[in-house]
Amino acid sequence: MNNPAKVLRSEFDKEMQSVDQLINKYMTSDSTPIISELSSHLINAGGKRLRPLLTIASAKMCGYSGNAHIQLAAAIEFIHSATLLHDDVVDESEKRRGKPTANSLWNNQSSVLVGDYLFSKSFQLMVEAESLSVLSILADASATISEGEILQLSAIRNLHTDVEVYFKIIEGKTAALFSAATKVGAVISNAEQDFVIALMNYGRFLGLCFQLTDDLLDYTGDEKSFGKKIGEDFREGKLTLPLIKAIERSTPKEQKFWKNSVQKPSQYDKNFEEGLAIMEKYDTLDFTRNEAIKYSKKAFNSLDVFSNSELKDILKQLALKVVSRIN
Amino acid sequence: MNNPAKVLRSEFDKEMQSVDQLINKYMTSDSTPIISELSSHLINAGGKRLRPLLTIASAKMCGYSGNAHIQLAAAIEFIHSATLLHDDVVDESEKRRGKPTANSLWNNQSSVLVGDYLFSKSFQLMVEAESLSVLSILADASATISEGEILQLSAIRNLHTDVEVYFKIIEGKTAALFSAATKVGAVISNAEQDFVIALMNYGRFLGLCFQLTDDLLDYTGDEKSFGKKIGEDFREGKLTLPLIKAIERSTPKEQKFWKNSVQKPSQYDKNFEEGLAIMEKYDTLDFTRNEAIKYSKKAFNSLDVFSNSELKDILKQLALKVVSRIN
Repeated sequence: MNNPAKVLRSEFDKEMQSVDQLINKYMTSDSTPIISELSSHLINAGGKRLRPLLTIASAKMCGYSGNAHIQLAAAIEFIHSATLLHDDVVDESEKRRGKPTANSLWNNQSSVLVGDYLFSKSFQLMVEAESLSVLSILADASATISEGEILQLSAIRNLHTDVEVYFKIIEGKTAALFSAATKVGAVISNAEQDFVIALMNYGRFLGLCFQLTDDLLDYTGDEKSFGKKIGEDFREGKLTLPLIKAIERSTPKEQKFWKNSVQKPSQYDKNFEEGLAIMEKYDTLDFTRNEAIKYSKKAFNSLDVFSNSELKDILKQLALKVVSRIN
Repeated sequence: MNNPAKVLRSEFDKEMQSVDQLINKYMTSDSTPIISELSSHLINAGGKRLRPLLTIASAKMCGYSGNAHIQLAAAIEFIHSATLLHDDVVDESEKRRGKPTANSLWNNQSSVLVGDYLFSKSFQLMVEAESLSVLSILADASATISEGEILQLSAIRNLHTDVEVYFKIIEGKTAALFSAATKVGAVISNAEQDFVIALMNYGRFLGLCFQLTDDLLDYTGDEKSFGKKIGEDFREGKLTLPLIKAIERSTPKEQKFWKNSVQKPSQYDKNFEEGLAIMEKYDTLDFTRNEAIKYSKKAFNSLDVFSNSELKDILKQLALKVVSRIN
């Protein structure tokens, strides 16, 4: 099969065009053109629209025939975009997907406020879908996302960050929205509980697998295909699984090295190589790879409750595809 | 009558205690203690809780007997708090209500993310109230608030900012939430359209009056009773009504002065005095005072549709009280 994300996109081309139209409509403000300019810079920058696509696909998996999935897909993309705008301010990022970030082109203030605007717009879109249960799912997901981001912020350069905290962070910052995206597709279709849970799990496991893969590639990736610089997490003092497991398994002497390198990032190049060597010594890159593959399989299997269909197959392939970059 | 805001507060003491309990419950995060700490620093810092109080009062004006007004009042306070956290980041403020701001005690990143968290929590609270119309009003208000803030940001040091833009800004940054606070109280009570509109107008006019008064006091206030430094708007290049009207009425030579002083704030003390003199020459402080009084009266009159009651009287007195500081 070709890239399953692309297959999915062409499968739902009509729906995604409607989603894009709605996105463009809702991010336009006549009185305040900077809103449309800044939003458009981010939203039309060639993101894969994976989350809204998952909402559409989940609704279709449950035989949905209405129109609310379009609103919800757009709402999901707005929540995602708001999060990205605020993330880039928090991380002081200058590039995203190879392009200058909104905060570097405009300023932090505008990114904060336009993020707020998009977040409000996402709730307007949800209200249009007229489902309180869907609103509840997305309000919960939004709170969980912020919680994950705040937890991540307090874990920066903190060597006591353990595996449990790591998973709490990625459940929040990544899995919560994937899981909400798939769940609302099922809920809006009034699907039976088994199907709702199956799709919710699929989204959650996919999100975890996605983040674990990303965190691994940050150490092992090829800069060109990864699309980001390698070693940024280490440089920024973000404690992700490969590092957390290495610290956990380290000798007192190695612990001292981590203390020096994670908390004082001045000698980055030398420390990055040495850090990578310790991770390899304790197999923590492989450990992370195996965790990612584990969640890829869980996502794959979670759809078993559905009877066979081409769409089910594409979603299963998507779960495998995420780890193909590291497998 | 004593201070009507205080009378209102003691009138609804029981309800406001429930609101406070709900606020404290929803701003607690077990996994992420910084959320509770930072939120509590702002929310329990002795704000007047005017907006949630208006929601409770509006519901009572319409004979409401349920419990959802408590949730909505807490939601309103959360939206307000989220806005304040983000505002202080945007304005780089170091003090609020005489105390260090959250961004100065923690950092900008935490303020942005905890603001997002509170905003999500406000939507969770609204969902609990189980009313799509209320959700719609508050999602709209939130979008309008951000729009107003963004417009204000783009108007900074911009001498072309006119009266129309000024009112758009204050409709957004202040009137929108006041108006939503009163409107949802009526809507949750299933009040007739006339009453909904009356309370919505009351909130809106009160908000406008409130902001106009604040913007005037920023030039003419007494630092102690105002609770903030005088001249901050001028120093920050915020174009508020007294300044906008002065620029509009100025001679070409005075225009040059504004250009130098608003766009290059280095000689603040000298320029502030000279600026104030031009404002007095063209009566723009009086003009602003009259606008504030106009909206105070409009708020006062908007409740006429209700039959007489003690509560109606308190709300009317509150509308007069706002301008008592400048009248």
